[in-house]
Amino acid sequence: MNEHISKQFDAELEQMRTRVLQMGGMVELQIAKALDGLASGDIGELDQVIDDDHRINQMELELDEACTQMIAKRQPTARDLRLVMTVFKMITDLERIGDEAKKIAKMSRRLHTSDKPFTPRIELRHSANLAIDMLRKTLDAFARLDINSVADVVRQDKQVDAEFKGIIRQLITFLMEDPRTISAGIDTLFMAKAIERIGDHAKNMSEYVIYMVKGRDIRHAGIEAIEQEVSQ
Amino acid sequence: MNEHISKQFDAELEQMRTRVLQMGGMVELQIAKALDGLASGDIGELDQVIDDDHRINQMELELDEACTQMIAKRQPTARDLRLVMTVFKMITDLERIGDEAKKIAKMSRRLHTSDKPFTPRIELRHSANLAIDMLRKTLDAFARLDINSVADVVRQDKQVDAEFKGIIRQLITFLMEDPRTISAGIDTLFMAKAIERIGDHAKNMSEYVIYMVKGRDIRHAGIEAIEQEVSQ
Repeated sequence: MNEHISKQFDAELEQMRTRVLQMGGMVELQIAKALDGLASGDIGELDQVIDDDHRINQMELELDEACTQMIAKRQPTARDLRLVMTVFKMITDLERIGDEAKKIAKMSRRLHTSDKPFTPRIELRHSANLAIDMLRKTLDAFARLDINSVADVVRQDKQVDAEFKGIIRQLITFLMEDPRTISAGIDTLFMAKAIERIGDHAKNMSEYVIYMVKGRDIRHAGIEAIEQEVSQ
Repeated sequence: MNEHISKQFDAELEQMRTRVLQMGGMVELQIAKALDGLASGDIGELDQVIDDDHRINQMELELDEACTQMIAKRQPTARDLRLVMTVFKMITDLERIGDEAKKIAKMSRRLHTSDKPFTPRIELRHSANLAIDMLRKTLDAFARLDINSVADVVRQDKQVDAEFKGIIRQLITFLMEDPRTISAGIDTLFMAKAIERIGDHAKNMSEYVIYMVKGRDIRHAGIEAIEQEVSQ
Protein backbone atom coordinates (compact mmCIF):
# COMPACT_ATOMS: atom_id res chain seq x y z
CA MET A 1 0.00 0.00 0.00
CA ASN A 2 1.47 3.38 -0.86
CA GLU A 3 2.02 5.91 1.88
CA HIS A 4 -0.80 8.21 0.88
CA ILE A 5 -3.42 5.46 0.86
CA SER A 6 -2.03 4.04 4.06
CA LYS A 7 -2.34 7.39 5.83
CA GLN A 8 -5.86 7.85 4.57
CA PHE A 9 -6.73 4.38 5.77
CA ASP A 10 -5.33 5.11 9.23
CA ALA A 11 -7.37 8.30 9.33
CA GLU A 12 -10.52 6.36 8.42
CA LEU A 13 -9.88 3.80 11.16
CA GLU A 14 -9.29 6.60 13.63
CA GLN A 15 -12.52 8.27 12.59
CA MET A 16 -14.38 5.01 13.07
CA ARG A 17 -13.02 4.67 16.60
CA THR A 18 -14.01 8.25 17.36
CA ARG A 19 -17.56 7.64 16.19
CA VAL A 20 -17.89 4.52 18.35
CA LEU A 21 -16.75 6.57 21.34
CA GLN A 22 -19.27 9.30 20.50
CA MET A 23 -22.01 6.71 20.27
CA GLY A 24 -20.84 5.23 23.58
CA GLY A 25 -20.85 8.64 25.25
CA MET A 26 -24.35 9.30 24.06
CA VAL A 27 -25.59 5.91 25.29
CA GLU A 28 -24.01 6.54 28.68
CA LEU A 29 -25.81 9.86 28.90
CA GLN A 30 -29.13 8.21 28.02
CA ILE A 31 -28.82 5.80 30.95
CA ALA A 32 -27.87 8.58 33.36
CA LYS A 33 -30.77 10.78 32.21
CA ALA A 34 -33.28 7.94 32.45
CA LEU A 35 -32.22 7.29 36.04
CA ASP A 36 -32.32 11.01 36.85
CA GLY A 37 -35.82 11.23 35.46
CA LEU A 38 -36.88 8.19 37.46
CA ALA A 39 -35.69 9.85 40.67
CA SER A 40 -36.91 13.38 39.96
CA GLY A 41 -40.07 12.69 37.96
CA ASP A 42 -38.91 15.24 35.38
CA ILE A 43 -41.16 14.19 32.47
CA GLY A 44 -39.39 16.51 30.03
CA GLU A 45 -36.10 14.78 30.67
CA LEU A 46 -37.69 11.34 30.29
CA ASP A 47 -39.35 12.37 27.01
CA GLN A 48 -36.02 13.57 25.74
CA VAL A 49 -34.42 10.17 26.42
CA ILE A 50 -37.27 8.48 24.54
CA ASP A 51 -36.96 10.89 21.60
CA ASP A 52 -33.17 10.72 21.40
CA ASP A 53 -33.11 6.94 21.01
CA HIS A 54 -33.54 7.28 17.24
CA ARG A 55 -30.23 9.15 17.08
CA ILE A 56 -28.48 6.12 18.56
CA ASN A 57 -30.25 3.84 16.08
CA GLN A 58 -29.05 6.11 13.28
CA MET A 59 -25.47 5.95 14.55
CA GLU A 60 -25.69 2.17 14.56
CA LEU A 61 -26.84 2.07 10.94
CA GLU A 62 -24.12 4.48 9.84
CA LEU A 63 -21.36 2.63 11.66
CA ASP A 64 -22.52 -0.74 10.34
CA GLU A 65 -22.39 0.67 6.84
CA ALA A 66 -18.96 2.21 7.49
CA CYS A 67 -17.61 -1.18 8.62
CA THR A 68 -18.86 -2.99 5.52
CA GLN A 69 -17.57 -0.21 3.25
CA MET A 70 -14.21 -0.29 4.97
CA ILE A 71 -13.86 -4.02 4.38
CA ALA A 72 -14.99 -3.79 0.75
CA LYS A 73 -12.75 -0.84 -0.10
CA ARG A 74 -9.69 -1.33 2.08
CA GLN A 75 -9.56 -5.08 2.61
CA PRO A 76 -8.05 -4.73 6.06
CA THR A 77 -6.20 -7.67 7.60
CA ALA A 78 -4.82 -8.69 11.01
CA ARG A 79 -5.23 -6.02 13.68
CA ASP A 80 -7.08 -3.59 11.40
CA LEU A 81 -9.60 -6.26 10.47
CA ARG A 82 -10.04 -7.14 14.14
CA LEU A 83 -10.80 -3.49 14.88
CA VAL A 84 -13.48 -3.35 12.19
CA MET A 85 -15.07 -6.65 13.24
CA THR A 86 -15.01 -5.54 16.89
CA VAL A 87 -16.73 -2.28 16.03
CA PHE A 88 -19.30 -4.21 14.00
CA LYS A 89 -20.21 -6.29 17.07
CA MET A 90 -19.84 -3.55 19.70
CA ILE A 91 -22.30 -1.18 18.10
CA THR A 92 -25.04 -3.82 18.29
CA ASP A 93 -24.57 -3.96 22.05
CA LEU A 94 -24.39 -0.17 22.29
CA GLU A 95 -27.65 0.17 20.39
CA ARG A 96 -29.32 -2.37 22.66
CA ILE A 97 -28.07 -0.53 25.75
CA GLY A 98 -29.76 2.50 24.21
CA ASP A 99 -32.98 0.48 23.96
CA GLU A 100 -32.73 -0.46 27.64
CA ALA A 101 -32.27 3.21 28.61
CA LYS A 102 -35.36 4.04 26.57
CA LYS A 103 -37.32 1.29 28.33
CA ILE A 104 -36.30 2.67 31.73
CA ALA A 105 -37.41 6.14 30.63
CA LYS A 106 -40.77 4.83 29.39
CA MET A 107 -41.47 2.91 32.58
CA SER A 108 -40.39 5.91 34.71
CA ARG A 109 -42.75 8.07 32.72
CA ARG A 110 -45.62 5.66 33.32
CA LEU A 111 -44.90 5.47 37.05
CA HIS A 112 -44.78 9.24 37.44
CA THR A 113 -47.84 10.02 35.32
CA SER A 114 -50.15 7.29 36.65
CA ASP A 115 -53.21 8.01 38.82
CA LYS A 116 -51.14 7.03 41.81
CA PRO A 117 -47.68 8.44 41.09
CA PHE A 118 -45.12 6.10 42.49
CA THR A 119 -41.46 6.38 43.22
CA PRO A 120 -39.90 2.98 43.78
CA ARG A 121 -38.93 2.31 47.36
CA ILE A 122 -36.11 0.27 45.96
CA GLU A 123 -32.85 1.94 45.15
CA LEU A 124 -31.80 1.25 41.56
CA ARG A 125 -29.18 3.96 41.39
CA HIS A 126 -26.35 1.90 42.80
CA SER A 127 -26.59 -0.92 40.30
CA ALA A 128 -27.16 1.60 37.49
CA ASN A 129 -23.96 3.40 38.47
CA LEU A 130 -22.11 0.10 38.43
CA ALA A 131 -23.42 -0.64 34.94
CA ILE A 132 -22.46 2.85 33.74
CA ASP A 133 -19.00 2.37 35.20
CA MET A 134 -18.65 -0.94 33.35
CA LEU A 135 -19.60 0.76 30.11
CA ARG A 136 -17.17 3.60 30.69
CA LYS A 137 -14.28 1.26 31.48
CA THR A 138 -15.04 -0.76 28.36
CA LEU A 139 -15.06 2.31 26.14
CA ASP A 140 -11.80 3.49 27.74
CA ALA A 141 -10.21 0.10 27.08
CA PHE A 142 -11.38 0.35 23.48
CA ALA A 143 -10.03 3.89 23.11
CA ARG A 144 -6.62 3.14 24.63
CA LEU A 145 -6.22 -0.46 23.44
CA ASP A 146 -5.54 -1.16 27.10
CA ILE A 147 -7.37 -4.13 28.55
CA ASN A 148 -6.10 -3.90 32.12
CA SER A 149 -9.49 -2.89 33.49
CA VAL A 150 -11.46 -5.51 31.57
CA ALA A 151 -11.22 -8.15 34.29
CA ASP A 152 -12.81 -5.55 36.60
CA VAL A 153 -15.71 -5.21 34.17
CA VAL A 154 -16.38 -8.94 34.33
CA ARG A 155 -16.25 -8.87 38.13
CA GLN A 156 -18.57 -5.86 38.24
CA ASP A 157 -21.01 -7.75 36.05
CA LYS A 158 -21.25 -10.43 38.72
CA GLN A 159 -21.91 -7.67 41.25
CA VAL A 160 -24.68 -6.19 39.08
CA ASP A 161 -26.23 -9.67 38.78
CA ALA A 162 -26.06 -10.12 42.56
CA GLU A 163 -27.66 -6.71 43.15
CA PHE A 164 -30.40 -7.63 40.71
CA LYS A 165 -31.18 -10.76 42.70
CA GLY A 166 -31.21 -8.68 45.89
CA ILE A 167 -33.64 -6.22 44.33
CA ILE A 168 -35.98 -9.08 43.39
CA ARG A 169 -35.90 -10.41 46.96
CA GLN A 170 -36.68 -6.96 48.35
CA LEU A 171 -39.51 -6.52 45.90
CA ILE A 172 -41.03 -9.85 46.80
CA THR A 173 -41.08 -8.78 50.45
CA PHE A 174 -42.70 -5.42 49.67
CA LEU A 175 -45.27 -6.97 47.36
CA MET A 176 -46.30 -9.56 49.93
CA GLU A 177 -46.80 -6.75 52.47
CA ASP A 178 -48.86 -4.63 50.11
CA PRO A 179 -50.25 -6.43 47.06
CA ARG A 180 -51.88 -3.21 45.81
CA THR A 181 -48.48 -2.04 44.62
CA ILE A 182 -47.96 -5.08 42.42
CA SER A 183 -48.38 -3.25 39.15
CA ALA A 184 -45.82 -0.56 39.98
CA GLY A 185 -43.61 -3.24 41.52
CA ILE A 186 -43.47 -5.09 38.23
CA ASP A 187 -42.37 -1.91 36.47
CA THR A 188 -39.61 -1.57 39.05
CA LEU A 189 -38.67 -5.17 38.39
CA PHE A 190 -38.31 -4.55 34.67
CA MET A 191 -36.25 -1.43 35.28
CA ALA A 192 -33.92 -3.48 37.46
CA LYS A 193 -33.82 -6.09 34.70
CA ALA A 194 -32.94 -3.40 32.14
CA ILE A 195 -29.99 -2.33 34.29
CA GLU A 196 -28.85 -5.93 34.61
CA ARG A 197 -29.04 -6.23 30.80
CA ILE A 198 -26.92 -3.09 30.40
CA GLY A 199 -24.26 -4.78 32.52
CA ASP A 200 -24.42 -7.87 30.29
CA HIS A 201 -23.98 -5.78 27.15
CA ALA A 202 -21.02 -3.92 28.65
CA LYS A 203 -19.46 -7.26 29.53
CA ASN A 204 -19.99 -8.54 25.97
CA MET A 205 -18.33 -5.41 24.64
CA SER A 206 -15.36 -5.77 26.96
CA GLU A 207 -14.83 -9.31 25.67
CA TYR A 208 -14.80 -8.03 22.09
CA VAL A 209 -12.19 -5.47 23.13
CA ILE A 210 -9.95 -8.26 24.45
CA TYR A 211 -10.31 -10.00 21.11
CA MET A 212 -9.41 -6.78 19.30
CA VAL A 213 -6.30 -6.13 21.38
CA LYS A 214 -5.07 -9.67 21.95
CA GLY A 215 -6.47 -11.50 18.94
CA ARG A 216 -7.93 -14.14 21.19
CA ASP A 217 -11.56 -14.88 21.82
CA ILE A 218 -12.20 -15.45 25.51
CA ARG A 219 -15.97 -15.32 25.47
CA HIS A 220 -17.68 -17.99 27.56
CA ALA A 221 -14.28 -18.77 29.10
CA GLY A 222 -14.80 -17.44 32.62
CA ILE A 223 -13.03 -14.85 34.74
CA GLU A 224 -9.84 -16.88 35.18
CA ALA A 225 -9.20 -17.01 31.42
CA ILE A 226 -9.79 -13.27 31.20
CA GLU A 227 -7.45 -12.49 34.07
CA GLN A 228 -4.80 -14.66 32.46
CA GLU A 229 -5.22 -12.91 29.11
CA VAL A 230 -4.99 -9.48 30.71
CA SER A 231 -1.86 -10.34 32.67
CA GLN A 232 0.06 -11.61 29.65
CA MET B 1 -10.41 -15.17 -9.56
CA ASN B 2 -9.65 -18.43 -11.33
CA GLU B 3 -12.32 -21.06 -11.60
CA HIS B 4 -10.82 -23.43 -9.07
CA ILE B 5 -10.52 -20.80 -6.34
CA SER B 6 -13.95 -19.45 -7.16
CA LYS B 7 -15.52 -22.91 -6.76
CA GLN B 8 -13.73 -23.44 -3.49
CA PHE B 9 -14.91 -20.06 -2.27
CA ASP B 10 -18.51 -20.91 -3.19
CA ALA B 11 -18.18 -24.17 -1.29
CA GLU B 12 -16.90 -22.32 1.76
CA LEU B 13 -19.79 -19.86 1.66
CA GLU B 14 -22.21 -22.74 1.30
CA GLN B 15 -20.64 -24.50 4.25
CA MET B 16 -20.96 -21.33 6.33
CA ARG B 17 -24.67 -21.11 5.52
CA THR B 18 -25.13 -24.76 6.45
CA ARG B 19 -23.46 -24.24 9.80
CA VAL B 20 -25.67 -21.25 10.59
CA LEU B 21 -28.72 -23.38 9.82
CA GLN B 22 -27.41 -26.16 12.04
CA MET B 23 -26.88 -23.68 14.86
CA GLY B 24 -30.37 -22.30 14.24
CA GLY B 25 -31.91 -25.78 14.33
CA MET B 26 -30.18 -26.52 17.59
CA VAL B 27 -31.33 -23.25 19.16
CA GLU B 28 -34.90 -23.96 18.05
CA LEU B 29 -34.71 -27.37 19.72
CA GLN B 30 -33.41 -25.81 22.93
CA ILE B 31 -36.45 -23.52 23.17
CA ALA B 32 -38.86 -26.38 22.47
CA LYS B 33 -37.21 -28.64 25.05
CA ALA B 34 -37.19 -25.91 27.71
CA LEU B 35 -40.93 -25.39 27.21
CA ASP B 36 -41.56 -29.16 27.25
CA GLY B 37 -39.65 -29.44 30.50
CA LEU B 38 -41.58 -26.53 31.99
CA ALA B 39 -44.87 -28.29 31.21
CA SER B 40 -43.84 -31.83 32.15
CA GLY B 41 -41.43 -31.17 35.01
CA ASP B 42 -38.94 -33.55 33.38
CA ILE B 43 -35.78 -32.45 35.22
CA GLY B 44 -33.53 -34.59 33.01
CA GLU B 45 -34.72 -32.76 29.92
CA LEU B 46 -34.24 -29.37 31.60
CA ASP B 47 -30.72 -30.31 32.71
CA GLN B 48 -29.91 -31.30 29.16
CA VAL B 49 -30.96 -27.89 27.85
CA ILE B 50 -28.76 -26.23 30.47
CA ASP B 51 -25.79 -28.49 29.62
CA ASP B 52 -26.17 -28.15 25.85
CA ASP B 53 -25.94 -24.37 25.91
CA HIS B 54 -22.14 -24.56 25.77
CA ARG B 55 -22.41 -26.27 22.38
CA ILE B 56 -24.24 -23.26 21.01
CA ASN B 57 -21.62 -20.95 22.51
CA GLN B 58 -18.95 -23.03 20.81
CA MET B 59 -20.73 -22.80 17.45
CA GLU B 60 -20.86 -19.02 17.85
CA LEU B 61 -17.12 -18.81 18.46
CA GLU B 62 -16.34 -21.06 15.49
CA LEU B 63 -18.62 -19.19 13.12
CA ASP B 64 -17.29 -15.81 14.25
CA GLU B 65 -13.79 -17.04 13.53
CA ALA B 66 -14.88 -18.47 10.16
CA CYS B 67 -16.32 -15.07 9.15
CA THR B 68 -13.16 -13.19 10.03
CA GLN B 69 -10.99 -15.80 8.27
CA MET B 70 -13.19 -15.66 5.20
CA ILE B 71 -12.81 -11.90 4.96
CA ALA B 72 -9.06 -12.01 5.53
CA LYS B 73 -8.42 -14.83 3.05
CA ARG B 74 -11.06 -14.33 0.36
CA GLN B 75 -11.75 -10.61 0.50
CA PRO B 76 -15.38 -11.06 -0.50
CA THR B 77 -17.28 -8.11 -1.97
CA ALA B 78 -20.89 -7.20 -2.77
CA ARG B 79 -23.37 -10.01 -2.13
CA ASP B 80 -20.75 -12.40 -0.74
CA LEU B 81 -19.56 -9.80 1.75
CA ARG B 82 -23.15 -9.10 2.75
CA LEU B 83 -23.61 -12.81 3.45
CA VAL B 84 -20.56 -12.94 5.69
CA MET B 85 -21.50 -9.75 7.57
CA THR B 86 -25.06 -11.02 8.00
CA VAL B 87 -23.82 -14.31 9.42
CA PHE B 88 -21.51 -12.38 11.76
CA LYS B 89 -24.50 -10.49 13.19
CA MET B 90 -27.04 -13.32 13.08
CA ILE B 91 -25.01 -15.72 15.18
CA THR B 92 -24.88 -13.20 18.03
CA ASP B 93 -28.68 -13.21 18.12
CA LEU B 94 -28.79 -17.00 17.82
CA GLU B 95 -26.42 -17.38 20.73
CA ARG B 96 -28.51 -15.02 22.83
CA ILE B 97 -31.67 -16.94 21.96
CA GLY B 98 -29.80 -19.97 23.27
CA ASP B 99 -29.14 -18.05 26.50
CA GLU B 100 -32.85 -17.27 26.84
CA ALA B 101 -33.73 -20.96 26.36
CA LYS B 102 -31.23 -21.82 29.08
CA LYS B 103 -32.79 -19.24 31.40
CA ILE B 104 -36.25 -20.73 30.83
CA ALA B 105 -34.84 -24.19 31.60
CA LYS B 106 -33.18 -22.94 34.80
CA MET B 107 -36.31 -21.21 36.05
CA SER B 108 -38.45 -24.25 35.17
CA ARG B 109 -36.03 -26.41 37.10
CA ARG B 110 -36.32 -24.16 40.13
CA LEU B 111 -40.12 -24.12 39.98
CA HIS B 112 -40.35 -27.90 39.74
CA THR B 113 -37.77 -28.69 42.42
CA SER B 114 -38.85 -26.14 45.03
CA ASP B 115 -40.52 -27.09 48.33
CA LYS B 116 -43.82 -26.17 46.78
CA PRO B 117 -43.56 -27.38 43.19
CA PHE B 118 -45.43 -24.99 40.98
CA THR B 119 -46.67 -25.18 37.44
CA PRO B 120 -47.58 -21.74 36.16
CA ARG B 121 -51.31 -21.17 35.76
CA ILE B 122 -50.42 -18.98 32.84
CA GLU B 123 -50.02 -20.51 29.42
CA LEU B 124 -46.67 -19.59 27.88
CA ARG B 125 -46.77 -22.19 25.14
CA HIS B 126 -48.68 -20.09 22.65
CA SER B 127 -46.29 -17.16 22.65
CA ALA B 128 -43.32 -19.57 22.69
CA ASN B 129 -44.69 -21.28 19.58
CA LEU B 130 -45.05 -17.91 17.91
CA ALA B 131 -41.44 -17.07 18.73
CA ILE B 132 -40.26 -20.46 17.45
CA ASP B 133 -42.23 -19.92 14.26
CA MET B 134 -40.58 -16.50 13.79
CA LEU B 135 -37.18 -18.10 14.19
CA ARG B 136 -38.01 -20.88 11.72
CA LYS B 137 -39.30 -18.45 9.09
CA THR B 138 -36.19 -16.32 9.48
CA LEU B 139 -33.87 -19.29 9.03
CA ASP B 140 -35.89 -20.41 5.98
CA ALA B 141 -35.61 -16.92 4.49
CA PHE B 142 -31.87 -17.05 5.11
CA ALA B 143 -31.57 -20.52 3.55
CA ARG B 144 -33.60 -19.71 0.44
CA LEU B 145 -32.63 -16.05 0.04
CA ASP B 146 -36.37 -15.48 -0.08
CA ILE B 147 -37.65 -12.66 2.10
CA ASN B 148 -41.36 -13.01 1.36
CA SER B 149 -42.16 -14.22 4.87
CA VAL B 150 -40.08 -11.58 6.65
CA ALA B 151 -42.91 -9.07 6.93
CA ASP B 152 -44.84 -11.84 8.71
CA VAL B 153 -42.02 -12.18 11.21
CA VAL B 154 -42.23 -8.49 12.06
CA ARG B 155 -45.99 -8.73 12.49
CA GLN B 156 -45.63 -11.82 14.66
CA ASP B 157 -43.18 -9.93 16.84
CA LYS B 158 -45.89 -7.38 17.58
CA GLN B 159 -48.17 -10.28 18.47
CA VAL B 160 -45.57 -11.77 20.83
CA ASP B 161 -45.19 -8.35 22.48
CA ALA B 162 -48.96 -8.06 22.88
CA GLU B 163 -49.18 -11.56 24.40
CA PHE B 164 -46.40 -10.64 26.79
CA LYS B 165 -48.38 -7.62 27.98
CA GLY B 166 -51.43 -9.85 28.38
CA ILE B 167 -49.43 -12.32 30.45
CA ILE B 168 -48.28 -9.52 32.76
CA ARG B 169 -51.87 -8.35 33.25
CA GLN B 170 -52.99 -11.90 34.07
CA LEU B 171 -50.13 -12.34 36.48
CA ILE B 172 -50.92 -9.10 38.28
CA THR B 173 -54.48 -10.34 38.82
CA PHE B 174 -53.33 -13.72 40.15
CA LEU B 175 -50.72 -12.16 42.43
CA MET B 176 -53.22 -9.76 43.95
CA GLU B 177 -55.52 -12.69 44.67
CA ASP B 178 -52.82 -14.77 46.28
CA PRO B 179 -49.67 -12.89 47.29
CA ARG B 180 -48.08 -16.12 48.57
CA THR B 181 -47.36 -17.11 44.98
CA ILE B 182 -45.37 -13.93 44.26
CA SER B 183 -42.01 -15.64 44.14
CA ALA B 184 -43.11 -18.25 41.59
CA GLY B 185 -45.07 -15.57 39.76
CA ILE B 186 -41.91 -13.57 39.23
CA ASP B 187 -40.20 -16.61 37.74
CA THR B 188 -43.14 -16.96 35.36
CA LEU B 189 -42.78 -13.31 34.51
CA PHE B 190 -39.14 -13.73 33.58
CA MET B 191 -39.90 -16.79 31.50
CA ALA B 192 -42.49 -14.75 29.61
CA LYS B 193 -39.89 -12.02 29.22
CA ALA B 194 -37.38 -14.55 27.85
CA ILE B 195 -39.90 -15.60 25.20
CA GLU B 196 -40.52 -11.98 24.28
CA ARG B 197 -36.74 -11.52 23.91
CA ILE B 198 -36.53 -14.55 21.64
CA GLY B 199 -39.10 -12.86 19.40
CA ASP B 200 -36.99 -9.68 19.37
CA HIS B 201 -33.86 -11.60 18.39
CA ALA B 202 -35.71 -13.41 15.59
CA LYS B 203 -36.95 -10.06 14.33
CA ASN B 204 -33.41 -8.64 14.40
CA MET B 205 -32.21 -11.63 12.41
CA SER B 206 -34.96 -11.26 9.83
CA GLU B 207 -33.90 -7.65 9.28
CA TYR B 208 -30.32 -8.76 8.68
CA VAL B 209 -31.63 -11.26 6.12
CA ILE B 210 -33.39 -8.45 4.24
CA TYR B 211 -30.11 -6.57 4.18
CA MET B 212 -28.31 -9.67 2.88
CA VAL B 213 -30.80 -10.29 0.08
CA LYS B 214 -31.69 -6.73 -0.90
CA GLY B 215 -28.60 -4.82 0.12
CA ARG B 216 -30.72 -2.34 2.02
CA ASP B 217 -30.82 -1.77 5.74
CA ILE B 218 -34.41 -1.42 6.96
CA ARG B 219 -33.80 -1.71 10.68
CA HIS B 220 -35.71 0.80 12.78
CA ALA B 221 -37.77 1.64 9.68
CA GLY B 222 -41.12 0.11 10.67
CA ILE B 223 -43.36 -2.51 9.13
CA GLU B 224 -44.34 -0.34 6.11
CA ALA B 225 -40.74 -0.01 4.94
CA ILE B 226 -40.29 -3.75 5.31
CA GLU B 227 -43.44 -4.56 3.37
CA GLN B 228 -42.31 -2.23 0.62
CA GLU B 229 -38.89 -3.83 0.49
CA VAL B 230 -40.37 -7.33 0.33
CA SER B 231 -42.81 -6.45 -2.43
CA GLN B 232 -40.17 -4.95 -4.72
